[in-house]
Amino acid sequence: MDRNPPHFIDGGITVHPAVRDFLRISGEGGWINAVFPYDMGGQQIPVSIFFACQFMMAAANYSLSVYPGLASGAARLIYSFGSNELRKAYAEKMVAGTWQGTMALTEPEAGSSLGDVTTSAEPTAHGYYLVRGQKTFISAGDHDCADNIVHLMLARVKGAPAGVKGLSLFVVPKKRVAANGALEFNDVNCTGCYHKMGYRGAPIAQLSMGEENDCRGFLVGEENRGLSYMFQMMNEARIGVGMGATAIATAAYYASLEYARVRLQGRKLAEKDASKPQVPIIEHADIRRMLLKQRAIAEGSLSLMIYAGKLVDLHLSGEGESRERYELLLDFLTPIVKSYPSEMGIVSTSQAIQCLGGYGYSDEFPVEQYMRDARIHPIHEGTTGIQGMDLLGRKVTMKNGKAFGLYLEEIAKTVKEAKSLPGIAGHAARLEEAVEIQKKVTGSLVEHAVKGEIDRFLADATLYLEMAGVICIAWQWLMQGVVARRALDAGASGDARTFLEGKLYTMRYFFEYELPAVEGLSRRLISADAPTVEMKAEHFDD
Amino acid sequence: MDRNPPHFIDGGITVHPAVRDFLRISGEGGWINAVFPYDMGGQQIPVSIFFACQFMMAAANYSLSVYPGLASGAARLIYSFGSNELRKAYAEKMVAGTWQGTMALTEPEAGSSLGDVTTSAEPTAHGYYLVRGQKTFISAGDHDCADNIVHLMLARVKGAPAGVKGLSLFVVPKKRVAANGALEFNDVNCTGCYHKMGYRGAPIAQLSMGEENDCRGFLVGEENRGLSYMFQMMNEARIGVGMGATAIATAAYYASLEYARVRLQGRKLAEKDASKPQVPIIEHADIRRMLLKQRAIAEGSLSLMIYAGKLVDLHLSGEGESRERYELLLDFLTPIVKSYPSEMGIVSTSQAIQCLGGYGYSDEFPVEQYMRDARIHPIHEGTTGIQGMDLLGRKVTMKNGKAFGLYLEEIAKTVKEAKSLPGIAGHAARLEEAVEIQKKVTGSLVEHAVKGEIDRFLADATLYLEMAGVICIAWQWLMQGVVARRALDAGASGDARTFLEGKLYTMRYFFEYELPAVEGLSRRLISADAPTVEMKAEHFDD
Repeated sequence: MDRNPPHFIDGGITVHPAVRDFLRISGEGGWINAVFPYDMGGQQIPVSIFFACQFMMAAANYSLSVYPGLASGAARLIYSFGSNELRKAYAEKMVAGTWQGTMALTEPEAGSSLGDVTTSAEPTAHGYYLVRGQKTFISAGDHDCADNIVHLMLARVKGAPAGVKGLSLFVVPKKRVAANGALEFNDVNCTGCYHKMGYRGAPIAQLSMGEENDCRGFLVGEENRGLSYMFQMMNEARIGVGMGATAIATAAYYASLEYARVRLQGRKLAEKDASKPQVPIIEHADIRRMLLKQRAIAEGSLSLMIYAGKLVDLHLSGEGESRERYELLLDFLTPIVKSYPSEMGIVSTSQAIQCLGGYGYSDEFPVEQYMRDARIHPIHEGTTGIQGMDLLGRKVTMKNGKAFGLYLEEIAKTVKEAKSLPGIAGHAARLEEAVEIQKKVTGSLVEHAVKGEIDRFLADATLYLEMAGVICIAWQWLMQGVVARRALDAGASGDARTFLEGKLYTMRYFFEYELPAVEGLSRRLISADAPTVEMKAEHFDD
Repeated sequence: MDRNPPHFIDGGITVHPAVRDFLRISGEGGWINAVFPYDMGGQQIPVSIFFACQFMMAAANYSLSVYPGLASGAARLIYSFGSNELRKAYAEKMVAGTWQGTMALTEPEAGSSLGDVTTSAEPTAHGYYLVRGQKTFISAGDHDCADNIVHLMLARVKGAPAGVKGLSLFVVPKKRVAANGALEFNDVNCTGCYHKMGYRGAPIAQLSMGEENDCRGFLVGEENRGLSYMFQMMNEARIGVGMGATAIATAAYYASLEYARVRLQGRKLAEKDASKPQVPIIEHADIRRMLLKQRAIAEGSLSLMIYAGKLVDLHLSGEGESRERYELLLDFLTPIVKSYPSEMGIVSTSQAIQCLGGYGYSDEFPVEQYMRDARIHPIHEGTTGIQGMDLLGRKVTMKNGKAFGLYLEEIAKTVKEAKSLPGIAGHAARLEEAVEIQKKVTGSLVEHAVKGEIDRFLADATLYLEMAGVICIAWQWLMQGVVARRALDAGASGDARTFLEGKLYTMRYFFEYELPAVEGLSRRLISADAPTVEMKAEHFDD
């Protein structure tokens, strides 16, 4: 799929034929509605379990995994907020894997700034709306391996308020279901397809609606509440991006690990006899460092992903206070869940290339593709910059800091457990220290908000997110350390023992090599100097 | 050239036809021997000046700039250490831009470990040697845009010692010059071409010598001294890699700057009126941070490159003590000159993509290619791992630390100047503090070497190199700050004033956002915990 990417031809996009089989099998196998509640015809599989399956699929072929993922998210939106007619006419086919679903938000002039969406929807006497406008960067927005493409699209009803408060959500199918059940063209035109650095198995489409003034949109829920509905899919998609990034980083890690075990090059540093045979490069400390870095990022991220899935499950099954607790925790963590694996996935896959040297840069090995694929994640579903502003500008302060407080409580629990275990008590203390730094930094930044210095408050939100991410993953590693330490103390032996020791080495790696980044970041974040706020655009002139 | 990469066909590699013109024009224009001394027929242009020209060429098209660069380095080796016959028969044509030169070191089983080169050379009664073996990853190792390819090749004379002490340097042309002056095939066979992530305009060849036992190699200098000769070309190539990385990062910076000035998206944070027009994204602090990061990396690296060129010039024109001083400084700095731009070039080009969002990931804009191109630099001409061991394992301690001491003296001069200038005196103090940290870390690591703990000493050499690089670039920025501050105080006005203020903002950026990384790195480097040394390969099992 990487070497035969989608192409735009005769007004439509052609993709690798395997997509049709995979979508169909995903539908037949129950993978598309696996986590839907029973009352939506779903299987109500715990999200934490399903995430582990998604992880494997995305590690095998990230681009391919996106097709059923989007069908699932789009169908779920219809089940949650749409009418019975829309469920029957559209959502069921998406769940069956014969129709593609999409989320159609971005426009040429409205990417990060969704409030500037201009696609319009004009009410008619027939119940539907006439839609006109352009969308761009729509994943799986058109292809020839589904019998229909169903867009969950944000548009602005004529006369609606400016900004995000005037956005409504519509089902806008490429082919609409006529009264007699037949499919007829709905004036949704594919006008192009982006050629991308990576993630090349999935088509990213440009769309034009209503060129013949015959594009019908079917309102989902109420007018002007579109963004709040869409956030269900966006939050799912953000977590899904974190999982995709985790999966790609993991695949790259294993590819470089395999290579490091068999590639002979050089000798141990103390060996001066050049006639002695070369050793596998995994014997070199610098290679181990690069492998541990990848492992720490991949398995730390995976741990966070599964934890996030558990929060969804606990939220869905919880009631009252406990239900809110898990929802707040998930809300708080979502920008980290999206961004840490995405940003560090680039670093991690780049380390995989480095382990393979020149071979890693050639397409005879898979790692260069992994790095190209990974590069999309800090961009789609809300850039890292957007996530940073979400974390610092909304999540930290929401409900007077309640979500943040709950998060700190969870960390404190792990710290307490770890402090009782010899060998990792020291790591618990270091995590505690890092959390204190985060609290101090947060307080210092929020002061700017209190003083109304909003630009200054959020100028380095991306770095705040980076710092929060490192601390969060250190916590996940401490959790894993607690489990490993206890299992070892309980007498684990043989392969299990080696595995658990490996986990502890990786935890130590994280605390020694990754966590210290908090010091430099926090120093920056509490500094009074604000060149990015103070300078003017012309200072970039030369 | 990126979209029509080299391909291997009928035993040879075909490249973009522009290469022939560019090589010829480079020769005619005097670009290939520009820096050669007069007595080698060169123009003796100061290296610091020539670097500025190379920078522009590599920024325009990195792959293309490599062809004449390799011809130059290979010809220079012949002029420096080869016979008059070799100069006349081969080097002159390379200088003229009609023949390609290469450096042929790497073999399938000998990449980073050059001591394991097995290509053999058997002396004959005719003065030449018969060469047999395989080479791989040879840049410009074969192509159809030069009339001949001349390899400067490392091989082992039969009976020579094992390891690097048994390597000799040969001229091994694809076509040799017969007694009558005609060209005849020299049994150098191209057996393949790598398809790469980026840097796709340059062919990376696999070669097989002596399949018909008729490959003649012409010894350069004396037997078994090949590596010491080759180091002239390798050191030049390492500096050249730093320049290539700097150039690519710069090109990406300008591409993203141009976009940030014209792309309208979102409003200032304090603006709540969604009906107000969108602003250019350069108005957002997070975008400015990403632009400043790129600028700080690109212009900090360029400053270091030109400084390195100046050291070459001062070394070449110096005598006695002063000559040695500049040679030692250049020796010390070479691993940083190679690695800081290479490693940070990846980060920087990735930030360029991020500034463009989804557009940056598509091939409609150039930045995704810049990131793919940039990824080669930490690999070729000695990986970052190799450079780290060179810096910490050789350069820091050589001549009882004399080179390191001279480097610290140079920094101290700049610090002293800066301390007298209001507005940047504080930055001088912070650089001083960082240098103290580097000295402390160095001392702590060298203790391991003294105790014979060689694995421990060098386990994190890559991180030591990273830390040293950040401090070195902070120094380069402080130098620029001194110049800018003085020019402003002297009354610079208009565009010049804006430009100089921009330089000071970028200096402040570097000290605020990049230099603090020293804190986390140094904490790691002085830590007693050494998981990468302690663990065993099986701890990666699962």
